[in-house]
Amino acid sequence: MSNDEIKLDFERTDRLGFGEAILCEQKSTRQISAILDQAETASHSLLLTRLSTQKLSGLPANHRARIDFDETSGTAFFRYLPHATTAADVAVVAAGTSDAPAAREALRTLEFNGVGSTAIFDVGVAGLWRLMDRIDEIKRHTVVIAVAGMDAALPSVLGGLVPGVLIAVPTSAGYGMARDGETALAACLASCAPGVTVCNIDNGYGAACAALRVLNAIQKTTS
Amino acid sequence: MSNDEIKLDFERTDRLGFGEAILCEQKSTRQISAILDQAETASHSLLLTRLSTQKLSGLPANHRARIDFDETSGTAFFRYLPHATTAADVAVVAAGTSDAPAAREALRTLEFNGVGSTAIFDVGVAGLWRLMDRIDEIKRHTVVIAVAGMDAALPSVLGGLVPGVLIAVPTSAGYGMARDGETALAACLASCAPGVTVCNIDNGYGAACAALRVLNAIQKTTS
Amino acid sequence: MSNDEIKLDFERTDRLGFGEAILCEQKSTRQISAILDQAETASHSLLLTRLSTQKLSGLPANHRARIDFDETSGTAFFRYLPHATTAADVAVVAAGTSDAPAAREALRTLEFNGVGSTAIFDVGVAGLWRLMDRIDEIKRHTVVIAVAGMDAALPSVLGGLVPGVLIAVPTSAGYGMARDGETALAACLASCAPGVTVCNIDNGYGAACAALRVLNAIQKTTS
Amino acid sequence: MSNDEIKLDFERTDRLGFGEAILCEQKSTRQISAILDQAETASHSLLLTRLSTQKLSGLPANHRARIDFDETSGTAFFRYLPHATTAADVAVVAAGTSDAPAAREALRTLEFNGVGSTAIFDVGVAGLWRLMDRIDEIKRHTVVIAVAGMDAALPSVLGGLVPGVLIAVPTSAGYGMARDGETALAACLASCAPGVTVCNIDNGYGAACAALRVLNAIQKTTS
Amino acid sequence: MSNDEIKLDFERTDRLGFGEAILCEQKSTRQISAILDQAETASHSLLLTRLSTQKLSGLPANHRARIDFDETSGTAFFRYLPHATTAADVAVVAAGTSDAPAAREALRTLEFNGVGSTAIFDVGVAGLWRLMDRIDEIKRHTVVIAVAGMDAALPSVLGGLVPGVLIAVPTSAGYGMARDGETALAACLASCAPGVTVCNIDNGYGAACAALRVLNAIQKTTS
Amino acid sequence: MSNDEIKLDFERTDRLGFGEAILCEQKSTRQISAILDQAETASHSLLLTRLSTQKLSGLPANHRARIDFDETSGTAFFRYLPHATTAADVAVVAAGTSDAPAAREALRTLEFNGVGSTAIFDVGVAGLWRLMDRIDEIKRHTVVIAVAGMDAALPSVLGGLVPGVLIAVPTSAGYGMARDGETALAACLASCAPGVTVCNIDNGYGAACAALRVLNAIQKTTS
Amino acid sequence: MSNDEIKLDFERTDRLGFGEAILCEQKSTRQISAILDQAETASHSLLLTRLSTQKLSGLPANHRARIDFDETSGTAFFRYLPHATTAADVAVVAAGTSDAPAAREALRTLEFNGVGSTAIFDVGVAGLWRLMDRIDEIKRHTVVIAVAGMDAALPSVLGGLVPGVLIAVPTSAGYGMARDGETALAACLASCAPGVTVCNIDNGYGAACAALRVLNAIQKTTS
Amino acid sequence: MSNDEIKLDFERTDRLGFGEAILCEQKSTRQISAILDQAETASHSLLLTRLSTQKLSGLPANHRARIDFDETSGTAFFRYLPHATTAADVAVVAAGTSDAPAAREALRTLEFNGVGSTAIFDVGVAGLWRLMDRIDEIKRHTVVIAVAGMDAALPSVLGGLVPGVLIAVPTSAGYGMARDGETALAACLASCAPGVTVCNIDNGYGAACAALRVLNAIQKTTS
Repeated sequence: MSNDEIKLDFERTDRLGFGEAILCEQKSTRQISAILDQAETASHSLLLTRLSTQKLSGLPANHRARIDFDETSGTAFFRYLPHATTAADVAVVAAGTSDAPAAREALRTLEFNGVGSTAIFDVGVAGLWRLMDRIDEIKRHTVVIAVAGMDAALPSVLGGLVPGVLIAVPTSAGYGMARDGETALAACLASCAPGVTVCNIDNGYGAACAALRVLNAIQKTTS
Repeated sequence: MSNDEIKLDFERTDRLGFGEAILCEQKSTRQISAILDQAETASHSLLLTRLSTQKLSGLPANHRARIDFDETSGTAFFRYLPHATTAADVAVVAAGTSDAPAAREALRTLEFNGVGSTAIFDVGVAGLWRLMDRIDEIKRHTVVIAVAGMDAALPSVLGGLVPGVLIAVPTSAGYGMARDGETALAACLASCAPGVTVCNIDNGYGAACAALRVLNAIQKTTS
Repeated sequence: MSNDEIKLDFERTDRLGFGEAILCEQKSTRQISAILDQAETASHSLLLTRLSTQKLSGLPANHRARIDFDETSGTAFFRYLPHATTAADVAVVAAGTSDAPAAREALRTLEFNGVGSTAIFDVGVAGLWRLMDRIDEIKRHTVVIAVAGMDAALPSVLGGLVPGVLIAVPTSAGYGMARDGETALAACLASCAPGVTVCNIDNGYGAACAALRVLNAIQKTTS
Repeated sequence: MSNDEIKLDFERTDRLGFGEAILCEQKSTRQISAILDQAETASHSLLLTRLSTQKLSGLPANHRARIDFDETSGTAFFRYLPHATTAADVAVVAAGTSDAPAAREALRTLEFNGVGSTAIFDVGVAGLWRLMDRIDEIKRHTVVIAVAGMDAALPSVLGGLVPGVLIAVPTSAGYGMARDGETALAACLASCAPGVTVCNIDNGYGAACAALRVLNAIQKTTS
Repeated sequence: MSNDEIKLDFERTDRLGFGEAILCEQKSTRQISAILDQAETASHSLLLTRLSTQKLSGLPANHRARIDFDETSGTAFFRYLPHATTAADVAVVAAGTSDAPAAREALRTLEFNGVGSTAIFDVGVAGLWRLMDRIDEIKRHTVVIAVAGMDAALPSVLGGLVPGVLIAVPTSAGYGMARDGETALAACLASCAPGVTVCNIDNGYGAACAALRVLNAIQKTTS
Repeated sequence: MSNDEIKLDFERTDRLGFGEAILCEQKSTRQISAILDQAETASHSLLLTRLSTQKLSGLPANHRARIDFDETSGTAFFRYLPHATTAADVAVVAAGTSDAPAAREALRTLEFNGVGSTAIFDVGVAGLWRLMDRIDEIKRHTVVIAVAGMDAALPSVLGGLVPGVLIAVPTSAGYGMARDGETALAACLASCAPGVTVCNIDNGYGAACAALRVLNAIQKTTS
Repeated sequence: MSNDEIKLDFERTDRLGFGEAILCEQKSTRQISAILDQAETASHSLLLTRLSTQKLSGLPANHRARIDFDETSGTAFFRYLPHATTAADVAVVAAGTSDAPAAREALRTLEFNGVGSTAIFDVGVAGLWRLMDRIDEIKRHTVVIAVAGMDAALPSVLGGLVPGVLIAVPTSAGYGMARDGETALAACLASCAPGVTVCNIDNGYGAACAALRVLNAIQKTTS
Repeated sequence: MSNDEIKLDFERTDRLGFGEAILCEQKSTRQISAILDQAETASHSLLLTRLSTQKLSGLPANHRARIDFDETSGTAFFRYLPHATTAADVAVVAAGTSDAPAAREALRTLEFNGVGSTAIFDVGVAGLWRLMDRIDEIKRHTVVIAVAGMDAALPSVLGGLVPGVLIAVPTSAGYGMARDGETALAACLASCAPGVTVCNIDNGYGAACAALRVLNAIQKTTS
């Protein structure tokens, strides 16, 4: 693979307000390593998503030394410089333990972009009181990211209770008719709770970017 | 069409505990009329389902005179003799106004078989407080039939609150990714609320029959 | 149909920040009329969506007299009191003439809730220069609603150019493999443009509600 | 993973009448172990489902020592105290040898909750006489759980013969157009045998919970 | 439409052993009429399938005068000369009244080709005794065509009882998860009854042609 | 696993005219071994299908010693006694090298049941002259089994040329829109070549059983 | 509808080498009429596709007077000036009479752009000799457009025989598993005949445009 | 496997204008080796596609010595004699790094057939300026092959800008609703950019063959 195959988008932060991220799922270790070479040369930090433990261990040692890796979400910060984090503007609310990978991908993406967040896990609607115990806390956030698989009833219930911006992330949790997340996705889209928007299955990264767009819009208005 | 094409099952009540019903959806007016002839000859009552207003008006006057028709559900009682109705053992709970046809099909099937019921409509989870206002009333029933389309979150929420028998009827309400009820059905099946069982899309009749099986089992045990 | 089947949610504005709307698609004229009776009694205005010309003409004259109807979108304002409209915070950008119904449903929902908007139509990416002519104008809006059917490439292209909040509405325009909007929807969700969120097929109403959630969040922050 | 991600539902027995169960399929060994820690601390027993032999062997020795594991179904009893089992109220009827995992998941769930059952295996309808040999025995049970893959004709045939409560569990047995159980599921739902309700593909656990709801309803009536 | 668009296959009988048939479903009245012109000129008889009453009435009177039409199946014999019919070598067994159109299409195709048949209707497996009453009669036929919709359990049950040639015709009877016959088709194909082959949904014509191929093979062997 | 889970059908030969076969795909080595124990005890031969090399090597040595295994098709003859084979009544015609597993499954099933066959491979329609070179030879057989994946055009072309019984086996050969054989299957069913019947994807065993039914019918007629 | 919703692309001929076309399927009569107004004003000719007879009759008389309409294909030439047509560079080959609408849409699009063509209809592979009679004539064309529904075997067979450019148009002809053209489309794409490319279902217009791109490329090279 | 199962098509170059290729994906190492034996004996070169590194290493050393392998695309030239390459008539344009396998399969197929090409990678529309930087270069080619996964917006955008022949290759890049390339494929087919034709998912080989057909047509015209 020549370097001609890779064209990193280092100006994305200026243009869109959040940094470049590399989806590693269908890239070879060789391709990922070449991307990190470019970032290193440009003294640029990168967010890597869907990086498996196996691919991580296949990277050169000098790259691995500059990586902060989270196993549950498969996210890695490359050349990450910790910066001031804002107040917790975003709540990431997950229905079950099996939804943790997507939920943590959202949390990590927010952290990489310097945005504070609150994690509220295991509050699926089959045990409604768990959700009700924390609903006032959830409502205090500007943006709520609702992460749920199987029947994904959580975003529908939240949609009737929460006035803020509400973004649903359907997950591939479940089996049989959960259909690798397609049922959760369709349920979120068909929901009669108004004004809930939806991301791709397991796309915690995309939900966090959508939240960043909202926070940027607020900042632009108030500044 | 010769009469050889029709073999009514007049012994079903003895065998299964509930009467024969005729699904009219894909039958011609001629076929339905021939079926009513046989029932008339045998002095037998029948429940007709999915009977359109148009097909009803195409039936001979003598048959129409013996029919009690409900337009919303498309159900008809033929030669129905009102009999004593039991206490309201079954609650039929519907999420929205658009779920009324399937919900009423269940209610009418129960009535035809002499079972009392309570109708609780328009309590979808996007307005959770409407459901919570009536949850204690719902829990008092032996069997709960939950009727919902779109994302069908209602059965999931009920499944965590109601200890009784819970039967879900997904409906074809909604558009786009509601996919004519397939999303509601898949959501009911993929739900993590344990012990909820599911009927075909819009199959209020089948849910009522399942409730009858439960009530018959209780009666058999207690008698 | 008894009135027990209908429970309007007149407190929605207080709770969520935008008014109740009635999806008329699978409701009978009789059901819609009963809903308008309740709204009349409560001196409440309502937004009706997916109202066909045929159903409109079936409503009682006194209700019709209070309705402002838009044929392209099938939306109706019932007892609408014109109020001050904000500056044009939202751009509704549509790819083709066939996307007009969903795009106008969004525009009308914004108008009903007192929010100004800009309509930019027929700028699909197969004629890229049409879009480029107006991209600076589009970028000036806080929220951009991108409406597109067929392959729905418009939201992907906008996602790389526009820093603001971007909400995609896939439409059922097209034939064959357009699959009644499922291809457009899947394309929006699978897009590599980060932070674009998606609504149900043809759901201009839902996109407008999502925009309202964002504008409400900004107002809450700045007030 | 912090313990904040896990909120066990130890009150489920009081609320619904059957104990908490943990679906292990998409949970990591680390997550399962943390769950068992909580149960140990609370002196609570747990039912684990979809536990692979590999994950079992990855658990700490002290947890493994308290586990009663069944390989065919992948079920584990954690801290299980054998209690009096009722008479065999439930028949679990399986069409073929390949349906054993789901059938045994149902049997084990019933055992964990103290309910007696009868296992009747390899009675698929392609060899009808095998079923007919045992039909009288099957009919003596209050609840019949019918487990079948491929074309799932077994529940349809039973539905016309058995007056009791009948719950179908479609399985993923078969290949090609069996479509990992979707054909079996659709066949159960489309069946013209009235009053048969259906669970998710391979969901023996859910069918057993539904049976427990029925038995609880009977007990409540008779007590 | 010029005649160049139509090329009838009048040699098919010589080549394959059964006559040409015209599928009228997606042909215009003008196209069908032009086809009949060619057949008339060639003094050739034709079998028309999927001919609606409406299209029939749109044909020229001289063509209509030479047509023997069956409404249930939508089949028409054009210029049919009754010929000696063989003994009843084929049994056409249908599960329900709604399966009559496909079943009669098979019966009519056999009749058009001079083959005797037995019609056995309304013997679906939800009422197993109806089938068992006639199973010995069914087994006496060389070829059995099993016609069933919904869950299509009939061919599976027959497949274990009947040693002769067994051809399944799934039908579009049913609603919801019957999916216009796709569930019945998939169930027939996934059946564990060995040696059952399957035709397209509602394709009674094709099943009859397959039966003709078998009977021709027998005749060829014995002559 | 107790032996109660297994009920072999040793009378199938008497009833249907061909022997029992065991589908090994979703059975554990332990289950297969228990089945062979029963066959050994009953001095009965068995055909095993979909047996992987790995499962074969996991069987006890005494069973392995009695097995004749074919790797391409994954078929095994257990306790097979070679018997007189008939003349080649069946042609198995395969479109490509990738269709060999299903084609050989058919050939081996015929051999196990004492029927002669001709194998004609790699005659797909994209190289039409290869098929035309052998079409006369193919037409001499009583039954033709056409095995093809991808677009499965082979059965359609044969259907217009071959007067004998024609059974199509779609295969999972191909990638992308070949959809694991679903496209081949749908193409066979939608074909306008009349009288072609279809088996499940890759089901060479089923096609051979269907051929056996035809040959048995001929034998019965001529004897 | 304001004129702002319509932006015709009158420069397309200069840019791409073929004229603008208007897909009328999901446009209202009012929208189409406004488009024709713009074309009239600009003294520009237009190709209309998917125009129903009903919509045509709803257009103003002055527009209708300038329209050359073809009913089979639903195409209309607006303000068409007949120009010199090239030699027949393109062969449009259709499998059956039911494929005529898409085939004629291709022929009409070529005619509108001044390109000669040969129409060869009713040469489906189920009657292979009909195709073989004309294969030498077909091979003489620079571009071959193959139009076929159901199993769409025609493009596969042609792909092995024809060295020229080969474009497949799957059609919605057929029923049941033909799935409104999805089976034909998938079969074309999965075909092992190399170098065949595919258009959307029934998209004769698109195939003609692709042919125009090829002919333009040749002209550009030779000029 | 006997050699009878393999019939190589060494005359394809004469007949179609490009050489035989072997799809290795579902062939065993043994089958591939036998094919190479035949090519060796016939002194013929071959293109192998979808050859995994693992299968390559399983081939005999004498075959491996004659193979030029490209790991990214999985293509191998067997007995390849480098020949004069034409000018770069074809541009292969890929949207992202994950599309490299299909793009390189196209490039390698062109090289094997002696055709020059230009590779332009990582120019997806989410970063539109990357594409615009190179659009003039792209437009200079006779044929453009556009390779893109996920939402595959690239071919639509190119279709409005490029007058030459445009062939789309959808790829399986992406996750969730990218559905292994089905969304990209459907988006290409539903695109409103006229005259774009489409190949199977990841089928770079087929796109190159289609380009060869076009170049051959030009050569034939100009010679």
